[in-house]
Amino acid sequence: MKLCRYGEKGQERPGLVDKNGMIRDLSAHLADINAQALDPKSLAAIAALSIAILPVVPGSPRLGIPVTRTSKYIAIGLNYRDHAEEASLAIPTEPLIFLKAINCLSGPNDDIIQPPHSTKLDWELELGVVIGSKAQYVDEPKALDYVAGYCIANDVSDRGFQFQSSQWAKGKGCDSFGPIGPWLVTKDEVPNPQNLDMWLEVNGQRRQTGNTANMIFSVAQIVAYCSRYMTLLPGDVICTGTPPGVGMGTKPEPIWLKPGDAVHLWIDGLGEQRQTVVAYNP
Amino acid sequence: MKLCRYGEKGQERPGLVDKNGMIRDLSAHLADINAQALDPKSLAAIAALSIAILPVVPGSPRLGIPVTRTSKYIAIGLNYRDHAEEASLAIPTEPLIFLKAINCLSGPNDDIIQPPHSTKLDWELELGVVIGSKAQYVDEPKALDYVAGYCIANDVSDRGFQFQSSQWAKGKGCDSFGPIGPWLVTKDEVPNPQNLDMWLEVNGQRRQTGNTANMIFSVAQIVAYCSRYMTLLPGDVICTGTPPGVGMGTKPEPIWLKPGDAVHLWIDGLGEQRQTVVAYNP
Repeated sequence: MKLCRYGEKGQERPGLVDKNGMIRDLSAHLADINAQALDPKSLAAIAALSIAILPVVPGSPRLGIPVTRTSKYIAIGLNYRDHAEEASLAIPTEPLIFLKAINCLSGPNDDIIQPPHSTKLDWELELGVVIGSKAQYVDEPKALDYVAGYCIANDVSDRGFQFQSSQWAKGKGCDSFGPIGPWLVTKDEVPNPQNLDMWLEVNGQRRQTGNTANMIFSVAQIVAYCSRYMTLLPGDVICTGTPPGVGMGTKPEPIWLKPGDAVHLWIDGLGEQRQTVVAYNP
Repeated sequence: MKLCRYGEKGQERPGLVDKNGMIRDLSAHLADINAQALDPKSLAAIAALSIAILPVVPGSPRLGIPVTRTSKYIAIGLNYRDHAEEASLAIPTEPLIFLKAINCLSGPNDDIIQPPHSTKLDWELELGVVIGSKAQYVDEPKALDYVAGYCIANDVSDRGFQFQSSQWAKGKGCDSFGPIGPWLVTKDEVPNPQNLDMWLEVNGQRRQTGNTANMIFSVAQIVAYCSRYMTLLPGDVICTGTPPGVGMGTKPEPIWLKPGDAVHLWIDGLGEQRQTVVAYNP
């Protein structure tokens, strides 16, 4: 299933995207796409609904964050060997965990807001993993049992903020630095999360091309590993690292996003995102 | 006012601690100590209640996290010059921001749970700041307007996890690594947050002694600074760094917490916390 939340910011309703790409309203069956909705039993109940009788949502409403009440947004750094090399950083021997502040989460096509003092705004196309069940010290072979599904994630970063100190959080958690979606694609539709083509374009020019087969640590390894350091809760999101081609690594000079730029992300089976960069306007 | 949440985990009710140290039940006036309750108007309404008519809570119930639905727990690293020196780390020129995963939050006297693979468990006594109003690009002279109040925070850390990679999140966000409380003391009772004596004992032995006067960056500076990088929301918590005397910095050899150890924290006007270290037991 492709679950989404549609409508104006703060007033999103739960929806399901049918085979023709139409949004069907789920409000009669679900309060929202939240921790309760991601429970395997709840997902099974939604899957058992007759899609044809769900009301079609007219028009092209805005898409919101596809899951609400996320308690943490975990990110994995340097999880593609060639990206670690372009960033001139050591290849991790264990998954490198950092956190993105929750206020960064935004809809898949919402504007990326450049803070007034940002000068090194950058993109990072990533596979996002949405947790479905509480996971604490889980083993790798069972780790995917705790996953509800997948989404595209743009791990937007300001490299000036990120590298001002030793800790990256400051450059990763600004409002709008976490577009996820367009949908939460349940894992039954993603039989192998380690073989997904992905690309990102800026102003129509291809910048990143990758495949999740090139991840150093797999989704299962990452979920198991994270669960040893912080209990994962339904609705938590993990973005799993970016392939090469970020602005910071562009040769001969880095490229930074600026107001007016258009960012377009695509992952096989997970849909696409389109963001426009705008300057912060209080 | 001293606001608290009392009762068993997950079933806490809002309370107010009176002059005699008795908990008075606030359930008839507040759903919970959450973002709505921290709104200045809401706090004023609670302050206007006649305490004498609020029901006294019998016995000595467990105290929970004094605020619920926290969206982020921000920590400031190395904010006491002498602690930076004991950690052999450079003194920051700007507040050093990192994030503690929300699942670490626990009641002020709840056990500290040592993960099975933890070998370098450590304490950090800190002044906690609870945000009362949404803060975005606020200026330092007005920054305390956005603060609801203060609490004690123990920024529990595993130094092995923390320094395994460049990013500290992994060693800071384990379940139970974030005791806060015992109360949220509203800012009217803390006229000068930069002159609070504080100490921490382990097994009755004094390990940390400090005063918030020695912070490199003041609460106002920290709130203003953080608000430029991530919108602060009511209920968000910021712990503001620890004075010297952590286990890692003890000479001639570091000292690590182990099951059975008793940790006792105190900050002038904010009460005290007492935690026992226990081994993780699934």
